Amino acid sequence: MKKKALLTALVAAALLCGCKAQDSAPSALDVIMTRTSIRSFTGEAVSKAQLETILKAGMAAPTAMNGQPWRFVVVTDKDKMASVFGAGPRSEMFTTAGAVIVVCGQTTSMGRPFGAQPDAPEQEMPNMFWYEDCSAAAENILLAVKALGLGAVWTAGYPAEERIAPIAAALGLPANIKPLCIIPVGVPAEDPAPKDKWKPEYIHWEQW
Amino acid sequence: MKKKALLTALVAAALLCGCKAQDSAPSALDVIMTRTSIRSFTGEAVSKAQLETILKAGMAAPTAMNGQPWRFVVVTDKDKMASVFGAGPRSEMFTTAGAVIVVCGQTTSMGRPFGAQPDAPEQEMPNMFWYEDCSAAAENILLAVKALGLGAVWTAGYPAEERIAPIAAALGLPANIKPLCIIPVGVPAEDPAPKDKWKPEYIHWEQW
Repeated sequence: MKKKALLTALVAAALLCGCKAQDSAPSALDVIMTRTSIRSFTGEAVSKAQLETILKAGMAAPTAMNGQPWRFVVVTDKDKMASVFGAGPRSEMFTTAGAVIVVCGQTTSMGRPFGAQPDAPEQEMPNMFWYEDCSAAAENILLAVKALGLGAVWTAGYPAEERIAPIAAALGLPANIKPLCIIPVGVPAEDPAPKDKWKPEYIHWEQW
Repeated sequence: MKKKALLTALVAAALLCGCKAQDSAPSALDVIMTRTSIRSFTGEAVSKAQLETILKAGMAAPTAMNGQPWRFVVVTDKDKMASVFGAGPRSEMFTTAGAVIVVCGQTTSMGRPFGAQPDAPEQEMPNMFWYEDCSAAAENILLAVKALGLGAVWTAGYPAEERIAPIAAALGLPANIKPLCIIPVGVPAEDPAPKDKWKPEYIHWEQW
């Protein structure tokens, strides 16, 4: 009877531990190292709650002088996804995704030049680091997508004017808002192996 | 006796589960959401194994056409850290860190213009997306640092010429290698609360 109780308790404990392991979220390093570009999706929807978690991850990135120059346009309407993004090559990734996130940057903001008098009129000043801040946000978005078990791929926007002009027009972006990249997000219909891009020869210790 | 065995087994199971939880790596979403800039360090070293994990994370970022334009200079020598990075404001972060990672980009590479004959001579062509690729790598670096229990901060390089010129000269960078950002990495000597940067008003659903 003692043995049976012990066995029962151990089985229960093993099940509990097993559930815990299964429920536990993927580790940051695992997600970073195994994230890979997904360009084929099942067509299933991505929930608004998932999209908000993904965008919250984007907005958790650092920005120069905490300027937060990012803005996001999220398209989930299938017809609109097809009409705005479906014209280029490999367009099926934009029509089978559950959503398309356009990571945009505010390229200018109102302010005073360095050294100006405090009562000088504000003028439109360039946001010098907007594309870096927004790229960090885009990477966070890709990682959050992976952490949620979804897939995504970074497709090019800025500075390729021929890519961004029609998208900016279709989405009604103001003149100082530029699409940095266009990220289809969805349920993966492919499972490619992550690329091994580790090249120690790209590291220079102490000096070039 | 049955009860005692059951109790022993449950206590053992609880301990096992507890250890498991303690050993488990931080989740990707937790790391993304709670990462914050660390500018004060204890002065302790960061091991080469840790730095290689961090750089491997950087090289796991996506790049346009898989171009991998990133290059890294890692300075761990305290005197060199002070002399190369210690001149500016808040310089103590560069002298108390365990290492400074300079994320650089190869801004040009040899190739043929689009549409050129296959036997046309190669020429130096701009890497159009190098600063986006390298920004994604820099964000991965910050997240890997956090996942390892260390701290870091992204400090500005490109395109601020007055910041990058002296660093490029001191590190001996070739003309087409630009420092995108300078990241001191170390054991945190501060524990600031992460900023809440969630602004739903920055999200535009379906259309701007």
